[in-house]
Amino acid sequence: MTVEIVSENKSQGGRQIVARHESSSTSTGMTFSIFLPPQAESGGKLPVVWFLSGLTCSPMNVTEKGEYRAACAELGLVFVAPDTSPRGDDVADVGDFDFGKGAGFYVDATQEPWAANFRMWTYVTEELPALVGKEFSVDLDRQGITGHSMGGHGALTVALRNPGRFRSISAFSPIVAPSQVPWGRKALSGYLGEDPAAWRRHDAIALIEGGAHVPEFLVDVGSDDPYLDDQLRPELLERACAEAGIALTLRRQSGYDHSYYFVSTFMADHLRWHAERLS
Amino acid sequence: MTVEIVSENKSQGGRQIVARHESSSTSTGMTFSIFLPPQAESGGKLPVVWFLSGLTCSPMNVTEKGEYRAACAELGLVFVAPDTSPRGDDVADVGDFDFGKGAGFYVDATQEPWAANFRMWTYVTEELPALVGKEFSVDLDRQGITGHSMGGHGALTVALRNPGRFRSISAFSPIVAPSQVPWGRKALSGYLGEDPAAWRRHDAIALIEGGAHVPEFLVDVGSDDPYLDDQLRPELLERACAEAGIALTLRRQSGYDHSYYFVSTFMADHLRWHAERLS
Repeated sequence: MTVEIVSENKSQGGRQIVARHESSSTSTGMTFSIFLPPQAESGGKLPVVWFLSGLTCSPMNVTEKGEYRAACAELGLVFVAPDTSPRGDDVADVGDFDFGKGAGFYVDATQEPWAANFRMWTYVTEELPALVGKEFSVDLDRQGITGHSMGGHGALTVALRNPGRFRSISAFSPIVAPSQVPWGRKALSGYLGEDPAAWRRHDAIALIEGGAHVPEFLVDVGSDDPYLDDQLRPELLERACAEAGIALTLRRQSGYDHSYYFVSTFMADHLRWHAERLS
Repeated sequence: MTVEIVSENKSQGGRQIVARHESSSTSTGMTFSIFLPPQAESGGKLPVVWFLSGLTCSPMNVTEKGEYRAACAELGLVFVAPDTSPRGDDVADVGDFDFGKGAGFYVDATQEPWAANFRMWTYVTEELPALVGKEFSVDLDRQGITGHSMGGHGALTVALRNPGRFRSISAFSPIVAPSQVPWGRKALSGYLGEDPAAWRRHDAIALIEGGAHVPEFLVDVGSDDPYLDDQLRPELLERACAEAGIALTLRRQSGYDHSYYFVSTFMADHLRWHAERLS
């Protein structure tokens, strides 16, 4: 194995694993979590759902708070949560919650000092899928992707730029237009500089407006999410999807906020939606 | 309100609250979490399940990792998680994980320097139930109790010494005989001194052997729990219940360990068992 098992715990009849490997993309060690449902014990390859996490998160946030295992065990889904940035004492950081470590924004940085390690786009689109496909019983012809906040941005952009790879695409509270909102503008300018073309490749709205197409999205947002109006802006996704003919199911969940108390509430629902498209 | 709401998040259609109050038992501020299921909005008093946590835990461990909210929302149960000790800079501590802060063992300490604040027995059996009954729509005639590890010890001893108060009693990986195991002996001697009678009042096996009686227990333990043989010793509970005519359902769950990955797997199952007895 090229992956080191950091921990393994039986849960919901399956195996919750935290694993670590040396990444050629980021030139650092990288940690991810993977849940193998009980169906994995019989050896067949199973569909996989990728979960990209939000600002400040490691893979442990969703692993501990996401409440996905019971549904994955019922539905026979593998669930993989990558980290949100490279880590380590030698990795550049500025101590901000929304930039640097824990805030990779799923781009390959071109600007110094980030370019050396902040290559999360290559990591989540190429290296980690290849590794997971090689080391675990995962069927890469049946992939779904989802994510939360910055990770919702990641899920949408990764799916839009890899048409056909994902049979199901959803998001919780996604940042849909990073080019137009404070968190996104800070991250894209810091990692990618001021090149508008580079920004457009990492902005779901710009990608859709530029012709990228997938059949459908499921998106949940909380009506009481404090970031709804200035960072998330789901109405932009609604408009872009309507114009592009993408079937968007956008649910404004009354009274919910931006936390994992919200994500965990609708997690099983998303996983059932993915399973219907992956099975 | 005599309780301060630290946080409130909508989850599973209900309200997950973290609250704080000044405790007359511990002479400190005390924090607890309470989940009010959606049924609470219609105003009637609901049955409540108490969850006593294990060593090192605050109320947040089960609140974040326990995966109880979906089942409580389905079943109409209020779920309350107290802290495991008094907290604060002025509270005695020794820096051990199994004694002092985070390790109150649900006793009223008689030994110095613990006696001033470590009065968790009075706190969880008198003060907090009275407060919760007064401040929230909870039916104190329909109470269940459960807990994990040290908190399983708490659930069993609190129930055995308050016969008739709880209609349902369960535990995850409980310390059933603290008088006979290292964690328990350290805590009981430290908090209560060497008085054997004081120890017996806080030892489920000694209480059952001394005639304390309840109708039934549901207990889950993991077969791969590293503490099974030296700290938990479920076989002692099995023998004591058999001799005392207490209907014990003891399930040795194959391959599970001591973690919340185990607790969360069987949480909904326990809550359904409680709800059958509380509804």
